[in-house]
Amino acid sequence: MARAGFGGIAPWRHEIEDGKADIDALARQIRALGLTVTGYCRSAYLPGATREQFAANVETNRAAIRDAATLGAQCFVMVVGGLPEGSRDLPAARAQVIDGIGMLADTARAFGVPLAIEPLHPVYAADRAVVNTLAQALQICETLDAGGDTLGVALDVYHCWWDPALDASIADAGRARRLLAYHVCDWLRQTRDPLLDRGMMGDGVADLRAIRTAVERAGYAGMVEVEIFSAQNWWRRDPDEVLAICAERLQTVC
Amino acid sequence: MARAGFGGIAPWRHEIEDGKADIDALARQIRALGLTVTGYCRSAYLPGATREQFAANVETNRAAIRDAATLGAQCFVMVVGGLPEGSRDLPAARAQVIDGIGMLADTARAFGVPLAIEPLHPVYAADRAVVNTLAQALQICETLDAGGDTLGVALDVYHCWWDPALDASIADAGRARRLLAYHVCDWLRQTRDPLLDRGMMGDGVADLRAIRTAVERAGYAGMVEVEIFSAQNWWRRDPDEVLAICAERLQTVC
Repeated sequence: MARAGFGGIAPWRHEIEDGKADIDALARQIRALGLTVTGYCRSAYLPGATREQFAANVETNRAAIRDAATLGAQCFVMVVGGLPEGSRDLPAARAQVIDGIGMLADTARAFGVPLAIEPLHPVYAADRAVVNTLAQALQICETLDAGGDTLGVALDVYHCWWDPALDASIADAGRARRLLAYHVCDWLRQTRDPLLDRGMMGDGVADLRAIRTAVERAGYAGMVEVEIFSAQNWWRRDPDEVLAICAERLQTVC
Repeated sequence: MARAGFGGIAPWRHEIEDGKADIDALARQIRALGLTVTGYCRSAYLPGATREQFAANVETNRAAIRDAATLGAQCFVMVVGGLPEGSRDLPAARAQVIDGIGMLADTARAFGVPLAIEPLHPVYAADRAVVNTLAQALQICETLDAGGDTLGVALDVYHCWWDPALDASIADAGRARRLLAYHVCDWLRQTRDPLLDRGMMGDGVADLRAIRTAVERAGYAGMVEVEIFSAQNWWRRDPDEVLAICAERLQTVC
């Protein structure tokens, strides 16, 4: 990342937690390269089929928030989780998410790592996240952290580009000083797989320039993060080539 | 449908317009069987890359509304269309949709066929419908038909089950007397294809009983329509078997 000229990186937990990596050494290496850690991705899913599972999920996240602090991450990205296996009770899952984030807020405060709640596209409501709009994420922030700076939101264009309330919600997020991260990629018109067929910026239908304008107007001055899950295309290409294209597209279409 | 004991049917335009069918004869046949025509599916997409294309789309819909009247349909279902090919301008497409529905409202009034705007799941925002929530559809109704009964909404659980504002929006629709149709199927937790992998009621995660309760509390007294796009499963089975399972699930899980 540093060699390609990027200023930051957002490590994923599975890259850190696989047992082979020493997190302190990784943190030193990232610092030595002069890279900002824009965020640490991502939370364990909160909802559980039992109270015990839910409590275990909260504890997993507490440990991850500690690691986020070690890495010097600007936020801990919360992908909150979907319905527990076998459940159809969306309000209950959403209530568990609010309870869980409430329980984690003290840890986040203690370690100085704000939690960035990332609304996921409604196509993932069953299995990945029951928080599906920016307005819903902001409501959780206000419920648990009114006027505070422990909770915020991560805005990803892939998840939110379609939202009729997007502009209004971005402005609300700006007023409340809740915009902690901004992720880009693109939504391909012919999406073959909602999870792993994201597009490179400029190849899809998201109006990246309009969204970036709204985000900056809302006061966001952080980095723009590229996140392209693309099993059949970008993940198969030479990483240096992909980084060069990302760099170019960030300048020309984002 | 009649033989299987169902009380209504919603024909699709491609079944009527393929040139082999005489629509008056079809209408007589449906009436003779005692079937209610719950709706006529569905509008041509409204947004066009050019003004000419847009105008042509509106005219296609005018003709279809006339056919809906011939069939005795209780409503004409509006799937409004996505972004025109090559466009990233979601606000412009949404404005065209409002313009187009406004242009069709007089035709709908003249033929006595209300237009049921169907919000589609956000996964279809690019290619099928830029109206993606019930609140957004209701807003269009109020904008174009304040206090009237020419415009309304079609609520499909597949498209709306995830919406954090669903209960509130259903109540709003009831107060405004806008609920014209109610479609059921189910959202499978492991959806392999967002278009053609819908589940049979009870096989997925949508809380059909809760949504039905909200719909009836909002005053909806119409039929419950089953709509299951399922290329790999239900469409391949014996139709009589599928109808029998639908009938049973409508009684037990909807």
